[in-house]
Amino acid sequence: MFRPQIKVLDCTIRDGGLINNHDFDHRFVRAVYKAVSEAGVDYMEIGYRNSKNLFSTKEYGPWKFCDDDEIKRITDGIKSETKLSIMVDIGRVELEDIKPKPESPIDMIRVATYVKDIDKAIHMANDFDSKGYETTINIMAISRDQGPELDEALHQVEEESRIKTLYIVDSFGALYQETVEYLVKKFREIVKSKEVGFHGHNHQQLAFGNTIEAIIHGANYLDGTVYGIGRAAGNCPLELLMGFLKNPKFDIRPILDLISQEFIPLRNKIEWGYIIPYAISGIMNVHPKAAMALRKSAKKENYKEFYESLLDEYQD
Amino acid sequence: MFRPQIKVLDCTIRDGGLINNHDFDHRFVRAVYKAVSEAGVDYMEIGYRNSKNLFSTKEYGPWKFCDDDEIKRITDGIKSETKLSIMVDIGRVELEDIKPKPESPIDMIRVATYVKDIDKAIHMANDFDSKGYETTINIMAISRDQGPELDEALHQVEEESRIKTLYIVDSFGALYQETVEYLVKKFREIVKSKEVGFHGHNHQQLAFGNTIEAIIHGANYLDGTVYGIGRAAGNCPLELLMGFLKNPKFDIRPILDLISQEFIPLRNKIEWGYIIPYAISGIMNVHPKAAMALRKSAKKENYKEFYESLLDEYQD
Repeated sequence: MFRPQIKVLDCTIRDGGLINNHDFDHRFVRAVYKAVSEAGVDYMEIGYRNSKNLFSTKEYGPWKFCDDDEIKRITDGIKSETKLSIMVDIGRVELEDIKPKPESPIDMIRVATYVKDIDKAIHMANDFDSKGYETTINIMAISRDQGPELDEALHQVEEESRIKTLYIVDSFGALYQETVEYLVKKFREIVKSKEVGFHGHNHQQLAFGNTIEAIIHGANYLDGTVYGIGRAAGNCPLELLMGFLKNPKFDIRPILDLISQEFIPLRNKIEWGYIIPYAISGIMNVHPKAAMALRKSAKKENYKEFYESLLDEYQD
Repeated sequence: MFRPQIKVLDCTIRDGGLINNHDFDHRFVRAVYKAVSEAGVDYMEIGYRNSKNLFSTKEYGPWKFCDDDEIKRITDGIKSETKLSIMVDIGRVELEDIKPKPESPIDMIRVATYVKDIDKAIHMANDFDSKGYETTINIMAISRDQGPELDEALHQVEEESRIKTLYIVDSFGALYQETVEYLVKKFREIVKSKEVGFHGHNHQQLAFGNTIEAIIHGANYLDGTVYGIGRAAGNCPLELLMGFLKNPKFDIRPILDLISQEFIPLRNKIEWGYIIPYAISGIMNVHPKAAMALRKSAKKENYKEFYESLLDEYQD
């Protein structure tokens, strides 16, 4: 598949940070930045911007906050055409924490939101747009939010926002291809003036397949992470996405080397990937938080009991 | 997705046997048979039938040969409506080794073939049909064999064979959804009187997604293995397929228990799943044998070098 409009965003450090309290050391983050730059990846998302009034720097590593100076320590001296992105959550950032673009190393800001908070998301994204940033809105947990509220939110985004790209985020790893097709078509039909993006989760081993499905139906902004790292089962593996996209600007080899040298050792220390409680969460279309708690308990391999506990919840 | 014609075939022991010389002990195979029976799986493929003149019983375990008496030791005393299947390879079985159906515990025989051997496959399958078995032909390595020879083979199968189902086998884990759609449509168009089956390999984490794609376009015979066990990256995980299919006859819980009790310990002893050299094999559309050899060498994590060695092969 080759379409020149397609852009790949690596969110290794941002989504991977959700499983280690955003505490990757600078050497590791520089290695990722260098590899994705050499690989020709269009964007790298380096973390969240959160208010230090809400979260403690003692509890979380630097990529929970993404101070401009921290970012410059990563990029300094590395040749790169990869743009830098950060993510913000509704209600967790002060608008004045975001300086005008000319004073910042950041190129793009992505606003993560649920459908119900779309007004706040549009307000924030427009503020960042007026400061000179490229912006996106990322609609999370969309497998649970497909009612008329979604259509209304899409119309609002089209009419009121100045974002470049609107993302479908399969937070629960619950989407199958048919729903991805349905959503991409709906987004493109209503949100005609923006690009559509897709961010998959791999609970059911469908993050890559669903990303391909999104591409087929016209999504042009695609998220991946190195070796699929990310919350719970993780995300679409960047290396598979690069193998699929035939754009000659990409080179998979720096990513393969990065996995050999950094991600194989890391995977022995922290857990992500195909793990049955996450698969069950995806099948049941629920947030993986119960499964993540299970994996830290003595019952971590009691799959049937976990499945039945989710069935019970459904019956409430 | 619910379609009453859909049949699920578990080939855990057969395809899993390719990574342990078919040497699962009887207790383990009985546990699998009991679980798939309780789960309502339609078929279980228990191994290969190979001639003992060609392969040594000292070198390979019982599921390389699947003697009728060995099979009876597995099924004895377990309540089940699951049909039993074995696989045969062209040129590796004597037709007289297959007794008439009334004398055997086997219900179905699947003939694995390349496109070039389709005449032999039809001849064998018709022999088994005349002995009273349900039969299939499974066309392997189809990602490499899509020329006019494939069309000719499909016409021959339609006109000359009495099989029930013709399988698409993605031996190299190289297919993307678009090609799965193309192949299922082609098979259904030419081979009108048979069912279409799909057997995926998971080198690029697409075995499940491609199986869904095959279902969408009308394939009714679907292979899976418990926890995705199988050669190289393995197969479509049976538990994910059962989670997707909404047929009330299936119960995922015995499979979840089986994974907890048997497959988590087993995975610590033998390797399958998402492993970069298998992903590279899938991306490059080659047999995983070079990657399997790499995984047994000291260079097992040298991914970039392995990728470049395959590129060199392409240039020969």
